Amino acid sequence: MYDLAKVRADFPILSREVNGKPLVYLDNGASAQKPRVVIDAMTRMYEEEYSNVHRGLHFLSNLATDKYENVRAIVRRFLNAPNDTDIVFTTGSTEGINLISYGWAAPRLQAGDEIVLSVLEHHANIVPWHFLRERQGVVLKWVEPEADGSLAAEKVVEAIGPRTKLVAITQMSNVTGTRVDVKAICAAARAKGVVVLVDGSQGAVHGPVDVADLGCDFYAITGHKLYGPSGSGAIYIRPERQAEMRPFLGGGDMIDTVTREGVTYNSPPMKFEAGTPGIVQQVGMGVALDYLMALGMENVAAHEADIAAYAQARFAGLNWLHQQGTAPGKGAIFSLTIEGGAHAHDISTILDKRGIAVRAGTHCAMPLMEFFGVSATARASFGLYNTREEVDALVSALELCHEFFA
Amino acid sequence: MYDLAKVRADFPILSREVNGKPLVYLDNGASAQKPRVVIDAMTRMYEEEYSNVHRGLHFLSNLATDKYENVRAIVRRFLNAPNDTDIVFTTGSTEGINLISYGWAAPRLQAGDEIVLSVLEHHANIVPWHFLRERQGVVLKWVEPEADGSLAAEKVVEAIGPRTKLVAITQMSNVTGTRVDVKAICAAARAKGVVVLVDGSQGAVHGPVDVADLGCDFYAITGHKLYGPSGSGAIYIRPERQAEMRPFLGGGDMIDTVTREGVTYNSPPMKFEAGTPGIVQQVGMGVALDYLMALGMENVAAHEADIAAYAQARFAGLNWLHQQGTAPGKGAIFSLTIEGGAHAHDISTILDKRGIAVRAGTHCAMPLMEFFGVSATARASFGLYNTREEVDALVSALELCHEFFA
Repeated sequence: MYDLAKVRADFPILSREVNGKPLVYLDNGASAQKPRVVIDAMTRMYEEEYSNVHRGLHFLSNLATDKYENVRAIVRRFLNAPNDTDIVFTTGSTEGINLISYGWAAPRLQAGDEIVLSVLEHHANIVPWHFLRERQGVVLKWVEPEADGSLAAEKVVEAIGPRTKLVAITQMSNVTGTRVDVKAICAAARAKGVVVLVDGSQGAVHGPVDVADLGCDFYAITGHKLYGPSGSGAIYIRPERQAEMRPFLGGGDMIDTVTREGVTYNSPPMKFEAGTPGIVQQVGMGVALDYLMALGMENVAAHEADIAAYAQARFAGLNWLHQQGTAPGKGAIFSLTIEGGAHAHDISTILDKRGIAVRAGTHCAMPLMEFFGVSATARASFGLYNTREEVDALVSALELCHEFFA
Repeated sequence: MYDLAKVRADFPILSREVNGKPLVYLDNGASAQKPRVVIDAMTRMYEEEYSNVHRGLHFLSNLATDKYENVRAIVRRFLNAPNDTDIVFTTGSTEGINLISYGWAAPRLQAGDEIVLSVLEHHANIVPWHFLRERQGVVLKWVEPEADGSLAAEKVVEAIGPRTKLVAITQMSNVTGTRVDVKAICAAARAKGVVVLVDGSQGAVHGPVDVADLGCDFYAITGHKLYGPSGSGAIYIRPERQAEMRPFLGGGDMIDTVTREGVTYNSPPMKFEAGTPGIVQQVGMGVALDYLMALGMENVAAHEADIAAYAQARFAGLNWLHQQGTAPGKGAIFSLTIEGGAHAHDISTILDKRGIAVRAGTHCAMPLMEFFGVSATARASFGLYNTREEVDALVSALELCHEFFA
């Protein structure tokens, strides 16, 4: 049984007011709030348990190292990865995807080789591939969604040609909540010997993930969207791909020996983790993932499905409200525009006066904005602590916007 | 007047015990502890003020953005950089130096071009340059220290040849506390049209920094060594160098426009900052730097000079104790070995039983270990909160090690 009131009480910020109104936080797609257990774990570590990791033998260093390295096993469980060593720590999906671009793709892809990606992608899963286009002549092949924002897995598979080396695809759009059948894509790509990177920045937040079942080569997550601290993250990397990768960031920890003449490298995953890591925020991410697993990601998904259905029902009555992306089975992320003069930024500003936090803009997904023919949207993205009453508050405030700009 | 008791009271962890003894934390070279104001600022932000930055218009997003962007001005003041826009946020010196290697050096240096660096360098200021040697044939020219661990600026300058494009040099050795006259090196390099990167990971911790006076092109700092959070950092980049750099990490925030065909980039410093940054830890670093500036870095330096002189006087009487690096004017960082059988790791373990945290190993500086002809040292690195009594505790425990292994 999902005890929503109890869940909400776990998040200190949800009891604050904004502009004299209770905070209605619907900007979870950009970043989620943090439960008390995560905040307290970090505070305690700085107050009582802090040291650098890996390189020490003293009590605090061993304690910090144990807590930090234990997070690898937590991430492995959260993603159902086969081995702890499949998990490489990052500062988030952006660093994770860049790690693959610089460490795996850049040394392997030749001019004319292709990367297949979808128009749904976040800039974090676009710009690193544009770098390869700019710098070494790699070709980007774009797969278009349907008019409702859904993405046909078979269209992605059809885009794979003899020069395709990589498919880089999101599991869930951060703009529309569209879910992508990445398992089907992975199976077909694998049969053709093509590697698949899954951007799990949103997908991992809104339902159970099983990378073994998906069959992907890379799966990137971001801690701050998973109710963990800013600057935390990880990426699952299949061992065969790890073996093909060269190191990315150079520095301490990722080496075995350094001389004036050369470097030998540490074994994966350490080979891909240079310098002092984000110790305390990674520990905080571990607490956040434990929190999510204790709630049960299937329960989180069920709660959010209820919220999504309720929101769709409420939106259905508003014929002046346009929703970008209405794919069947989509998550509780809604990109909205209002017929007439209200710009997305105006909507956000008016909602903010009522304490409702939504995001206005292109959501780091300009190709998708272009596809929908809009310059910007107001995006309400729900999380595990949001309520039907907050949907009502949103709808009421949207009605106000509509009246104001009519 | 430097009120040491008051300073110590600012750091919660210093009141804890380790192995039944009061903690004597002498591992500041690896990472420093955090004052209450830093911990509280982060806790408060997560409890009341958290949101993603830059992309929102709602109250919490504006609040978080203001707090985050304000840190740029704090770093500018701390380093005496000319402009806020000269400050690029990083996760620490490792990412900062890699940013320069990938963003400035990699696209500019040709096979046969040279990088001058010293044998004092930390792996973070070695491995990124070895990448360029491995990948594109850049030549590394090493400058040796003197037997006492000092580094003659003129030897660095002499190593600059017609093919030299970059000098990468530390301001203070993390192994020996050796201070390097980087101002003299910058002046000579500049006269020859050669760019200088200064690794300020230690230098910025132990005295005032003035990048305008130094005349360097790049100056990297790490927040967690500056009494700030893990995962925080920044690098000063001279505007002329920013203009020469291509972007490093690709993703949100660092772009102006993204289409299927290509990308246009944001202006510096944002051009070099991709994706959701380490919002809360950067805010924490700002609080830490404000804390240091309120103490006065010249006062911190004077206090540490007193501790260093006291330690040197106490060590002087111990003829079985060897110190690697005794350069005049060195900082309060002491690499130590004991004549006879005590390995550095044994020393660390015995000291730990007395609650004394030192680091044993190669300190991410293997070329310097090789220079001194040691496989490892025990390093006691002092910070702004350490006391003469802690020096006494260290000496007493070292005497115990000597007796134990004699």
